[in-house]
Amino acid sequence: MASMLLSRQLTCCLQQNSRLLVFGHRYISQAAAKIDVDFDYDGPLMKTEVPGPRSRELMKKLNGIQNAEAVHFFCNYEESRGNYLVDVDGNRMLDLYSQISSIPIGYSHPSLIKLLQQPQNLSTFINRPALGILPPENFTEKLKESLLSVAPKGLSQVMTMSCGSCSNENAFKAIFMWYRNKERGHNNVTKEELESCMINQPPGCPDYAMLSFMGGFHGRTMGCLATTHSKAIHKLDIPSLDWPIAPFPRLKYPLEDFVKENQQEEARCLEEVEDLIVKYRKKKKIVAGIIVEPIQSEGGDNHASDDFFRKLRDIARKHGCAFLVDEVQTGGGCTGKFWAHEHWGLDDPADVVTFSKKMMTGGFFHKEEFRPNAPYRIFNTWLGDPSKNLMLAEVIKVIKTEDLLNNATHAGKALLTGLLDLQARYPHLISRVRGRGTFCSFDTPNDATRNKLITIARNKGVVLGGCGDRSIRFRPTLIFKDHHAHLFLNIFSDILANFK
Amino acid sequence: MASMLLSRQLTCCLQQNSRLLVFGHRYISQAAAKIDVDFDYDGPLMKTEVPGPRSRELMKKLNGIQNAEAVHFFCNYEESRGNYLVDVDGNRMLDLYSQISSIPIGYSHPSLIKLLQQPQNLSTFINRPALGILPPENFTEKLKESLLSVAPKGLSQVMTMSCGSCSNENAFKAIFMWYRNKERGHNNVTKEELESCMINQPPGCPDYAMLSFMGGFHGRTMGCLATTHSKAIHKLDIPSLDWPIAPFPRLKYPLEDFVKENQQEEARCLEEVEDLIVKYRKKKKIVAGIIVEPIQSEGGDNHASDDFFRKLRDIARKHGCAFLVDEVQTGGGCTGKFWAHEHWGLDDPADVVTFSKKMMTGGFFHKEEFRPNAPYRIFNTWLGDPSKNLMLAEVIKVIKTEDLLNNATHAGKALLTGLLDLQARYPHLISRVRGRGTFCSFDTPNDATRNKLITIARNKGVVLGGCGDRSIRFRPTLIFKDHHAHLFLNIFSDILANFK
Repeated sequence: MASMLLSRQLTCCLQQNSRLLVFGHRYISQAAAKIDVDFDYDGPLMKTEVPGPRSRELMKKLNGIQNAEAVHFFCNYEESRGNYLVDVDGNRMLDLYSQISSIPIGYSHPSLIKLLQQPQNLSTFINRPALGILPPENFTEKLKESLLSVAPKGLSQVMTMSCGSCSNENAFKAIFMWYRNKERGHNNVTKEELESCMINQPPGCPDYAMLSFMGGFHGRTMGCLATTHSKAIHKLDIPSLDWPIAPFPRLKYPLEDFVKENQQEEARCLEEVEDLIVKYRKKKKIVAGIIVEPIQSEGGDNHASDDFFRKLRDIARKHGCAFLVDEVQTGGGCTGKFWAHEHWGLDDPADVVTFSKKMMTGGFFHKEEFRPNAPYRIFNTWLGDPSKNLMLAEVIKVIKTEDLLNNATHAGKALLTGLLDLQARYPHLISRVRGRGTFCSFDTPNDATRNKLITIARNKGVVLGGCGDRSIRFRPTLIFKDHHAHLFLNIFSDILANFK
Repeated sequence: MASMLLSRQLTCCLQQNSRLLVFGHRYISQAAAKIDVDFDYDGPLMKTEVPGPRSRELMKKLNGIQNAEAVHFFCNYEESRGNYLVDVDGNRMLDLYSQISSIPIGYSHPSLIKLLQQPQNLSTFINRPALGILPPENFTEKLKESLLSVAPKGLSQVMTMSCGSCSNENAFKAIFMWYRNKERGHNNVTKEELESCMINQPPGCPDYAMLSFMGGFHGRTMGCLATTHSKAIHKLDIPSLDWPIAPFPRLKYPLEDFVKENQQEEARCLEEVEDLIVKYRKKKKIVAGIIVEPIQSEGGDNHASDDFFRKLRDIARKHGCAFLVDEVQTGGGCTGKFWAHEHWGLDDPADVVTFSKKMMTGGFFHKEEFRPNAPYRIFNTWLGDPSKNLMLAEVIKVIKTEDLLNNATHAGKALLTGLLDLQARYPHLISRVRGRGTFCSFDTPNDATRNKLITIARNKGVVLGGCGDRSIRFRPTLIFKDHHAHLFLNIFSDILANFK
């Protein structure tokens, strides 16, 4: 009980900090007073340690029916609002992780509540169709209002899927079909192809590969997993495919001090990509496509320069490989552009772009030439869920109306500036501060320190996420504003000052 | 216009048939008068050919952004109720395909509408959590009310997933982990395993396989697809894995006339299963599990005897392979038991059972020994969707309250009896009538005849589905009653009588 009381007093103090304290290393926000009272809360409010007693009780119960060791705590989503996640013990936390980067405009957004209350939308939530054969009347219209209104330039086609893994799996398939049709010409499928594919053998099942990068994460189903190289726990014991894996640049920070080294590092990786394509073709394994994240997220928030990606795109074109950009985590606006790869300034668009998470539905955009040449080739029962398309249309409306891309740039700058300042003050705890928009991160000395910092922050009312082997990543919602950044920075500054 | 008028008159006539005509080959239902007026419609009502003009217009629009050639017609789900699907041209059809077998209790069921209107449920639909780390307070409770209340005997553990493919993919992974842990003993993972798995190589990524059956369908992501052998269109151009594929029995009908032949056929297939396990082990590819559907659905509604499956289960145990039953299409009650494999009378439960479709959420049940030994091993961002769990809990309540398993047995008998009668009268059009519960099907002479019958039936107000190369399958909802069976049989009897 003593610790609970202490915690409460501390929280109370912290809540006041962001507005009252103006001396020393306090981050002051002009916008701090501007709070959407109907929606967002005005700060964290901690009542117990997290996980609290009720969470622990529920964890035990869940653990009876599945391995629940990954559960952080149980949530009260009814009470969660805006940037704040409320747990079952009544703790209210500023959420900078947003369900592994998948809550676009905050919890319980009024627009979405309204949408769900409209009688004409009821049917969409309870009558889930097989979209590929029996779509609802407004299917195309909702796709145009939502996904197509933010489609990356040059990509006119879109397929929806239920999750990120299915998005990448089906994008691979579209690429393999495209490549085979190029090879085959005139679409004359042979009897041998039709028969051999039924028993998993070439030529019907050709020996094609996707080239991926060490440190990348593209999902956990078997096709995706063959391109995922983030952590051993994601891969161990699962049979895989002999597909080429290139090194991803390991940049040195601060970038301005290591311009030449980083250029060399990127050139080395690009050279390896080309070597692998040639080497695998020699052993009759054709690299049909290259998959890459704009920022390797699960693998540790690894960035590369825009120039690196432009050159990678050139290599793909030169070797006739499809260029697939996985925007499952980076997409949706958090980098300040709707798609992170829009920062690169490509002269030739990506061929395929996959999405999920903040987009509420999975799926992929692609150029017209990647369109399957027959029905039922890219297909499954549900092909996504129109109730997610409906919500996404509303979310995109909010993003546009509230100018949330510019907000991500602005709030991201506040966050990054603060993190750089903390790095200068606590270089033994914080290094390699990096980010684009609010998609920020930093490194800690090691895994143990990282996890300890996350736990302490949580008990002070801030939910953070880890990635890679020692990084902390920021994945707030799109309604994360400057004053939330300052609120976090003040709390975290105190944590670092007292860290032992 | 003439055809429209004719169609209307005919429909009107047909609607009366099921209740008025009592002579000749009319199927009369005691229950025909008992119609839940608030919910189900009382018969088909056709206004145009299907697809009608509005559907055709929408198909053209959709085809601009994705290949829409598989679309049958566009639907008005707001107006669809019970067993009846209404299209955008105002046609109302008795739906015996139910969105590829995925609508459990009919369209716009009042219980689900009510559920969605309750203010306390709003949050579940708009705040989608990352269930593996931040589950909602009622997560375990809803799983207990829904999935666990119908868990196959002996399977105490459950994981939820977003779709059928993800369910099978993750079931495979749980099996591979289980097998490797058996081999490894004491869970001492080596440094070599941890390193090699990151580059897709053994021993970290062992050369394990799932054994599957020719004609089986288990999904379309790359792991699933390696076990799918239904149609070439599902497989062509996608690289695959060299995994063993056994023949599935091809039974002769009527079963009572071919007892010995069918026994021999099943024995042949079982022998091949054992041979393949041994053969693949010799070439150092370990069969970690066997996957099978209780009735091969997409592949053509291929049945085998309960004895066949009991013996297959024995073979799995004998060789130390996991026994995975894919109930994605057969599960949820349509065979008269909640799980089709419950008909077999296994003495040792299946090890893993996957589900999706009618269950509204994907996922899998498994024995405790298949539980991952660490967190994050079976994991993804969403791990299903609690809004689907919420609806499933309601659906299962309805199934129990309204005794819908017995209904499936009863209505299925009415359907099967009628189909056998039609087979006797039209043996040149209908053969191999088979089924369990309402999960019925028959063969037609060829693909062209099958497709023509489906098209004619649709224009007479009945939606049917095809499977395999010449079969028609019945996949009605669980609220499909005897009088719906008789309504269909009368319409179809006329179609067959006039078929040229």
